[in-house]
Amino acid sequence: MTNTLAHRRELCFWGWGYTDQGLTPEEETHVARLASGLGAEHKPGPAPRLEEFDLAAPRIAAPDNLSPILSCTPYDRITHGYGKSFGDLVRMQMREMPNPPDWVAFPRNEEDIAALMEFAASSGAALIPFGGGTSVCGGVEPDVGGDYGAVISVDLQYLNRVLEVDKTSRAALIEGGALGPELEADLKPHNLTLRHYPQSFEFSTLGGWIATRAGGHFASNYTHVDDFVESVRMLTPAGVMVSRRLPGSGAGPSPDRMMIGSEGTLGFITRAWMRLQDRPRFRASASVSFPGMEQAWSAVRAISQAALFPSNCRLLDPAEAMMNGVGDGDTALLVLAFESADHPLQAWMARALELAGDHGGSWDQAAVDRSLSGSDSADEDGEHRQGAAGQWRNQFLRAPYYRNYLTPAGVIVDTFETSITWDRFEDLYQGVRERVGRSLKEVTGTDCMLSCRFTHIYPDGPAPYFTFYAMGSREGDMASMLSRWREIKLAANEAVVGLGGTVTHHHAVGRDHRPGGYDDQAPPLFRRAFAGARRELDPTGMMNPGVLVDTPDRRATARGVLVD
Amino acid sequence: MTNTLAHRRELCFWGWGYTDQGLTPEEETHVARLASGLGAEHKPGPAPRLEEFDLAAPRIAAPDNLSPILSCTPYDRITHGYGKSFGDLVRMQMREMPNPPDWVAFPRNEEDIAALMEFAASSGAALIPFGGGTSVCGGVEPDVGGDYGAVISVDLQYLNRVLEVDKTSRAALIEGGALGPELEADLKPHNLTLRHYPQSFEFSTLGGWIATRAGGHFASNYTHVDDFVESVRMLTPAGVMVSRRLPGSGAGPSPDRMMIGSEGTLGFITRAWMRLQDRPRFRASASVSFPGMEQAWSAVRAISQAALFPSNCRLLDPAEAMMNGVGDGDTALLVLAFESADHPLQAWMARALELAGDHGGSWDQAAVDRSLSGSDSADEDGEHRQGAAGQWRNQFLRAPYYRNYLTPAGVIVDTFETSITWDRFEDLYQGVRERVGRSLKEVTGTDCMLSCRFTHIYPDGPAPYFTFYAMGSREGDMASMLSRWREIKLAANEAVVGLGGTVTHHHAVGRDHRPGGYDDQAPPLFRRAFAGARRELDPTGMMNPGVLVDTPDRRATARGVLVD
Repeated sequence: MTNTLAHRRELCFWGWGYTDQGLTPEEETHVARLASGLGAEHKPGPAPRLEEFDLAAPRIAAPDNLSPILSCTPYDRITHGYGKSFGDLVRMQMREMPNPPDWVAFPRNEEDIAALMEFAASSGAALIPFGGGTSVCGGVEPDVGGDYGAVISVDLQYLNRVLEVDKTSRAALIEGGALGPELEADLKPHNLTLRHYPQSFEFSTLGGWIATRAGGHFASNYTHVDDFVESVRMLTPAGVMVSRRLPGSGAGPSPDRMMIGSEGTLGFITRAWMRLQDRPRFRASASVSFPGMEQAWSAVRAISQAALFPSNCRLLDPAEAMMNGVGDGDTALLVLAFESADHPLQAWMARALELAGDHGGSWDQAAVDRSLSGSDSADEDGEHRQGAAGQWRNQFLRAPYYRNYLTPAGVIVDTFETSITWDRFEDLYQGVRERVGRSLKEVTGTDCMLSCRFTHIYPDGPAPYFTFYAMGSREGDMASMLSRWREIKLAANEAVVGLGGTVTHHHAVGRDHRPGGYDDQAPPLFRRAFAGARRELDPTGMMNPGVLVDTPDRRATARGVLVD
Repeated sequence: MTNTLAHRRELCFWGWGYTDQGLTPEEETHVARLASGLGAEHKPGPAPRLEEFDLAAPRIAAPDNLSPILSCTPYDRITHGYGKSFGDLVRMQMREMPNPPDWVAFPRNEEDIAALMEFAASSGAALIPFGGGTSVCGGVEPDVGGDYGAVISVDLQYLNRVLEVDKTSRAALIEGGALGPELEADLKPHNLTLRHYPQSFEFSTLGGWIATRAGGHFASNYTHVDDFVESVRMLTPAGVMVSRRLPGSGAGPSPDRMMIGSEGTLGFITRAWMRLQDRPRFRASASVSFPGMEQAWSAVRAISQAALFPSNCRLLDPAEAMMNGVGDGDTALLVLAFESADHPLQAWMARALELAGDHGGSWDQAAVDRSLSGSDSADEDGEHRQGAAGQWRNQFLRAPYYRNYLTPAGVIVDTFETSITWDRFEDLYQGVRERVGRSLKEVTGTDCMLSCRFTHIYPDGPAPYFTFYAMGSREGDMASMLSRWREIKLAANEAVVGLGGTVTHHHAVGRDHRPGGYDDQAPPLFRRAFAGARRELDPTGMMNPGVLVDTPDRRATARGVLVD
C-alpha cells in the first residue's frame, strides 16, 4: 500500500523527485565518475523499501470526525518523516525513522485544519505544516521534543488552486498548498507568471515558500518571495489572521512580515495574494569570464550598484566553474542575463558588460548579440538555453537528483548559503573556505571540493552559496557518514555566522540551522518578542515546535498550557 | 527664556519651519488670494507667544541624576507638546495645551536614555520618542491616557552623528536623531547620499523616518525608508535589540521589520545602518499632459508595470494640476523623471514616454532632450528645476509653510494619503472624492477644493495623496474649525479604509489615524500578536502609550505592571 489520501504523483520517499524519474544513463556515468574521483569504492545497493522501516505505532487514535482526512500508511508517514537534506537522505538509506509523524493529515479546506487544531489542543499533539517537504534544514521533521502526545504532519496538497486572478493589478489569490508547476499552469492562460523558481520549484509550494522566505528566479531586486507577497491569510490556533491587499503601506509594522519566515510556528498559510509578472518577451544573456575571483566580484559589485537589476547575475568562483565544466580552475564565470516583458534590453546589457569589462571581464559579443536578437521562441531553444548559461541551468535543475546516487555511494554532497555586505565579503569567502575546508579535511580525512557561487546580489552585498563534495564513507557506512556530516554542518553554521553572515539567505532555519547559527545570529530580544507574539496566536504551542525557537515549555497536561 | 538644552536653530513652535523663516511677499500674496478665494474674511492676528499658554506645572520632580538633561521651560514643553498636523496648528492658535509633556529630555547617549527608562519605570511615567516633531497624526502628543504619573518627551537631537561610512557596500551607520540635512552633509564628502526626501526632510530625523515608515524621494521601487534599512539598533526598556547588518536574509521573520513602523511603542531607534546611493550624475525629466484622468492613470499603470523604475512618477489629477498652476482643470499632468549615478537614461525615458503616448499623453520633446543632455550641473539649475516639474517641486517644499498663514486665516488645509491596488483605484478615487467631498461640504457649508496626486507607484497599484482646502471659519473661530476638521479627518480615515485602501501609505498611524482607520484595517490577531511582542520589550508599557495600540492597562501602582 502506498498512499490512500494523497492525490499527487508518487514521490520517491528516500530521495529527490517522483518515483518515475531517475538519472539518465549519461548522468549516471557522470556521477559515478564523480564518486570514484572522490575515492568512493562502494556501489550503492538496492533502494530503500517501505517495509524495511520499523515504525512505531501511532501514539494516539484518530478521532471519528478526522479519520476521513488522516492516514497512517507507512508511505504517508515515511514521506512526511523527513525533508530532503543530506542528513535526511542518509537516514533514509539507514532505514531509520525514530520519530515518524503519528498521523498524516490531508485537509480539504480551512475547516479541516481548524478541526485538526482542536484535536491537537485537546490531545496535546503538535502540528507540522507540510507543503512539498523539500526542507533542507529539518523544517518538517516530527522530532519536536517536549511532551507532545503525538505529532501530526499536515499536508496541504488539496489547497492547491489559483482562486482569483486580477489582471489589472497583476496579482492572484493562490492557495498555500499549490506546487510551483500547478500555480504556473493556472496563471499561464492569463499570460502571467509568479516567476518564482527555487531549485525545488517542482516539489515545493507557495505556502512553503512564504513560510521559509524562499529565494527565487530573480538575482536582483526581487530576490525573495517576500517581495511578491501582497497579502497573506493565515489560520492560527487563535483564529484567522488576514492582511489587507495593498501595494504598499506605512500603517504600523507589516503584518505580512511577521508571517513571512514564520516557518509554521504561528499557523498555516492557507492563501496569499501574490504579485505577478507578465511573461517575458525580451531576453539578453552573456557569459563573462574573469581571470580571477577578485576582478569578478568587483565587477558584480559594480553591476549590483548600478541599478540595472539583472534577472541573473550568478557568479561562479573558479572551483564552481570548473565543477560545472565551464572553467579551467582559475577563471571565474559570470552568468549574466536580463529579461523584460516590456522592452528590448540592449542598453541594460551594454552597460552591464561595460562594467564587467572595466574589471577585466571578457565575453563573446556575437553570442550576446544573438541572445538580444531572439524573440519569444528564445525561451525554448535560443541562446539562453545554450552555451555556458544553458549548461549551468541544466546542472542547477538536475543537481538534487545526483544525490540519489551519490548518497548511497558514500559521498557527502551538500550546500550552504549566506549573505554578507561587500566590505566583509572577501573575509567571509576566504574564511569559509578555510574553516569549512579544514573541517571537511579533518572530519573525512580526505581532500574535498568546496566551491562558491552567488545566487542573488544586492547593492550592499552578495548572497554566496557554497557547495561541497566529500568522501563520507569509503565503505558506504551511512551511520558514520551521518555523524561526519553533522560535524561539517555545524562548522558551516559557525563559519558563516561567525564571519558576519546570515545562517541562511533562503534555505530557512528549521531545526538544523539553529545550533551555531540562528541561535547566535538572531537578536535575543527579538526572539523573546517573537515568542511573545507567538503565545498570542498559538497559546498551547502546538505549531511546529522546535523550529526557529525552543520547543515551548508546557505543563504536562492533556491540554498543554504554555508556561512562561 | 526659549530653550536651555537644545542646540538647534529655534523652531517656530506654532507653525512650520524655523523662527527666522517665513513666507516671501509673493507667497504671502498668493496665500492671501487663496484664502479670500475660499471666502475667508478674517485676517490672521499676531502669532502665538509662549507666555499666552497656561501650562500646568510638571507633575513630578526631576531626579538629581537626570536634571542635567531635563528641561521644563515653556518653549521646550510647548514645542514638544504637539506635532505639525492641521489640528496641532489650530490648537497652537487657540493657545491651548492641556497635556504638555511634564519634562523634555535631551539625552546625550544611550546611557541617558536607559536612565530615563529607569526613572519612567519607577515613577510610572510615559516616554515619547521625539525626532523632529513633524508628525501629522498625533504621534508625539503627550495625551497618553491611562494612569501615567507624567509624560516625558525625549528629544534625540544630540544623537545626530554619522558614525561610520562603508564606501564599499555603500552604507553608513547613522544615529537616530540626525535630521535630514545633518546626515546628508556628513555623507556628501563621501559622494554618497541616503536620498530620502520626505516633505519634512529639513525637520525630521532618521529614527523618526524608520519608526514611521516614511516615504521618500523615489517614486518607485525604493518607496519607503524601509528599503534602505540594513540593520537597526533599538534601545527598549528590556535592553538593546540590534539586528545584524545584512544585504538580505531568510533567517526567520525579519527583526528589522518588527522595529520599522513601531512608532516609538517598542523603544528608541538609536542607530541604524542605512543603504546609500551614489550621488546621481544623469537625469531625465518630462512633463506629460493627458486629456483626462483615466488615460493618465492607465499610462502610469503601464509605466509602473514595465520595470523601468522612474525616480519620479507623480501624477497630478486635473484639480491638483490646476491648483498648482500647471493645468486647465481638465488636463492631468504626469511629472516623470529618471536619475542614475551610473548611466545615461535615454532608453529608460524613451520607453516610458512611448507608454505615455500609447495612452494619449503629450509632451515637449525638446525639453526632454534638454534634460537628457544636462550634466552634473543639471542638479542646480537645469531643466529639472524649470518648467512644470520645477514649479511643482517648489510648491512641494513650500506648501507646509503656507499653513502658517492659512490656519489663522480660518482656512482648513490638509492632506491624507493611501495606497490601493489598480483594480480598485478608480472606485477609491471616485469614492473618496464623493465621500470626503460630501463631508467637506456638509461640515463647512461651502464648496471645497479636493485634489489628488500619486506620490509613489507600484506594479500593483498607486499611492494616491489627497489635498483639500476648505473654509474652516469665516470669522477665524479656531475652536469650531478644530471640531470641523476632526469630523472631516474621521470621514477621510473611513473613506480610504472603507474603500479598501490603507489609512496611511507613509504618514504613519499615531493617535489620529486609529479611529475609523487603523483600528479597522489592521488584522485583529496581528494587533494581539504585536501587543504580545511589545509586552516582552516594554513590560511596564512606558513607550508612547496610545499610539498604534490602546494604552496598556496597568495596575495603578507607582511601578506600573501590565495587566493582561
